[in-house]
Amino acid sequence: MQAIKCKGFQAAGIAAGLKKAGGLDLGLIYSDRPASVAGVFTRNRVPAAPVVLDRQRVTAGQCQAVIANSGGANCCTGAQGMADAREMAFLAANGLNIAEEGVLVASTGVIGQRLPMESIRAGTPALVAALRPDGFSHLAEAIMTTDTHPKIVSRQAEIGGVPFSVVGVAKGSGMIRPDMATMLCFVCTDLIAPPETLQLSLIAATHRSFNRITVDGDTSTNDTILLLANGASGADIEGPLGLGTFQAVLDEVLLALAKMVVRDGEGASKLAEIAVRGAASDADAACVAQTVANSNLVKTALFGEDANWGRIMAAVGRAGVPVEPDRIAIDFNEVRMVEKGMGRGLEAEQAATEVLKTPEFVITIDLGMGDARDSVFTCDFSLDYVRINADYRS
Amino acid sequence: MQAIKCKGFQAAGIAAGLKKAGGLDLGLIYSDRPASVAGVFTRNRVPAAPVVLDRQRVTAGQCQAVIANSGGANCCTGAQGMADAREMAFLAANGLNIAEEGVLVASTGVIGQRLPMESIRAGTPALVAALRPDGFSHLAEAIMTTDTHPKIVSRQAEIGGVPFSVVGVAKGSGMIRPDMATMLCFVCTDLIAPPETLQLSLIAATHRSFNRITVDGDTSTNDTILLLANGASGADIEGPLGLGTFQAVLDEVLLALAKMVVRDGEGASKLAEIAVRGAASDADAACVAQTVANSNLVKTALFGEDANWGRIMAAVGRAGVPVEPDRIAIDFNEVRMVEKGMGRGLEAEQAATEVLKTPEFVITIDLGMGDARDSVFTCDFSLDYVRINADYRS
Repeated sequence: MQAIKCKGFQAAGIAAGLKKAGGLDLGLIYSDRPASVAGVFTRNRVPAAPVVLDRQRVTAGQCQAVIANSGGANCCTGAQGMADAREMAFLAANGLNIAEEGVLVASTGVIGQRLPMESIRAGTPALVAALRPDGFSHLAEAIMTTDTHPKIVSRQAEIGGVPFSVVGVAKGSGMIRPDMATMLCFVCTDLIAPPETLQLSLIAATHRSFNRITVDGDTSTNDTILLLANGASGADIEGPLGLGTFQAVLDEVLLALAKMVVRDGEGASKLAEIAVRGAASDADAACVAQTVANSNLVKTALFGEDANWGRIMAAVGRAGVPVEPDRIAIDFNEVRMVEKGMGRGLEAEQAATEVLKTPEFVITIDLGMGDARDSVFTCDFSLDYVRINADYRS
Repeated sequence: MQAIKCKGFQAAGIAAGLKKAGGLDLGLIYSDRPASVAGVFTRNRVPAAPVVLDRQRVTAGQCQAVIANSGGANCCTGAQGMADAREMAFLAANGLNIAEEGVLVASTGVIGQRLPMESIRAGTPALVAALRPDGFSHLAEAIMTTDTHPKIVSRQAEIGGVPFSVVGVAKGSGMIRPDMATMLCFVCTDLIAPPETLQLSLIAATHRSFNRITVDGDTSTNDTILLLANGASGADIEGPLGLGTFQAVLDEVLLALAKMVVRDGEGASKLAEIAVRGAASDADAACVAQTVANSNLVKTALFGEDANWGRIMAAVGRAGVPVEPDRIAIDFNEVRMVEKGMGRGLEAEQAATEVLKTPEFVITIDLGMGDARDSVFTCDFSLDYVRINADYRS
């Protein structure tokens, strides 16, 4: 694989002893000049300390570094937790010789335990020393918790003939659902862009990606998406077709990362797109898609490779939106399973079962009530999900 | 165990060959005189045929028999399904020599397959012949699907010195959640009561019992609770303190059945009451209790006997109601785990872990925002839940 880089940025990930099991657990992003910044954060009412800190700091519109750890969420840690988050930023700023306010912080791991600040203090000099232009893969590894592999995506495009790059890393395979995104996602671009434009682009791209995935219906106290633009490429978002070009690339990067997160959902073996068509309104479409995508009974049926369309009908029925059962059609990829609210028999079921044996497929639900549509990406619900989450802290 | 009876009622359950695995699968309740009837049904927008039929028939306020089957939900079966439901009622009415409109119908099992009407036709004479005053336990067995044991509760009380009985049977261990009750529950009483009063009592008792339990967040297309009162005891609900006495007994019967359903939740090994206190409003309390009770991460932690209170805090935070994290206290039975939004350390955690090793416990969440409270009963989320639901149809 070609080394992934983004002009003016360096990244790093080291093992600082935060994870019980060992492995990289402290990460850093550094821009050689102040970057415009945008952020989208969890709507959970019990936000972690770094989320509280970043929300304040992002309003300044400028940032030069992000320090992130796995092995502890720094949530429900009170005033001490806020002091620890600030100290993490201070340690990075000190090592990088930049302003403290220009550093953002992110944490992931178990809620309710104080961060091992001794390890973070001891590790920061090595972390700064480890910065490399091609260090994004180490960063991606350092923010993993129950993820089975690092998630990193890179895209290039150009504006007015000037090339620019977008590099994104993400983590998070549990506590994922619409409106709450992955736990952590950092995107760097060497584009020139004002923070206000970045913020609108990030909100739009998040809505089309991380807000459309679900693993287990739970959402995190720490979810954070940060977008940094340092201008090092010379390409300007205000150039010809600039905004549209950048938005398309950003959408692609975030959707690719979001799908990686679902595909790596805790215990997941399948990625399913729940595509709702023919809804009376966008809100109805979203509601039905999310109810089906979050149904434990649907998700266990996917795991069992059982084309149990009745569970899909039941989930549609409890979504809380008006439906007419006899107008509903359900397809598994190209296989029509349900027509006018009724099953199409054994042959269709056998064909649908073959679809379920593949690792990725689309379940299309046509409500026959109008023209609105929406999609949510989900995964199956396996024995390993329960194993992982019953044992996570031990 | 003493035989459970209710004056003027007989019940039966037989093996009619509807369940692939064998066992009782066709049940009947018969009253020797027309009874007042009340019903509460699923709010699922994809209701099964028997639900559609019963909703119409219950409005008459009178009923004399209920025929019920496991081994098939008769849902998403179109006009043929409605005809089959009507035929089931007709077969029972014919065998009992009563009016067809006086028979209600209930079905449970897989959605989307036509009922094996040949088996039901062939079985009905034997079903009628099997009616016994002490036949409720056979009925309870005949409506089981993934239930591991029959659920039956009986209580006696008196009004103005005249004794009366209430007997309830229920089934349902998956697709349970607040607002959707168990899949099937039939309650018989020999009290004299008008149908309008029965209906109000049943709604109130359901709200305090089946609407407060959850197994997996999914709700059924077939959920049905029927209450029949035939007056055979001579005790009158309009007698001295009659309504209050009956309501207390009915509440007790339904809550006992509802708890049995959760305790027998698919794969469940623990019964947990999620008790929310100090909420700003009843709606807030209910919302927080239900969000915590339905959280897969909380439920897998219960299965793992892991006092992972951070997952409870995260679920409280995403319930969508305003909370102040630093006002929240969480107790596991008598053990205070969280004070002012923070953990109370290793000793409290060890004590809480001991609580989690017991089969039944209360998790109390005090929000510190007001005086409102609510409770939901839930179970843990185990490997067996996934095994059961991945394999259910095979």
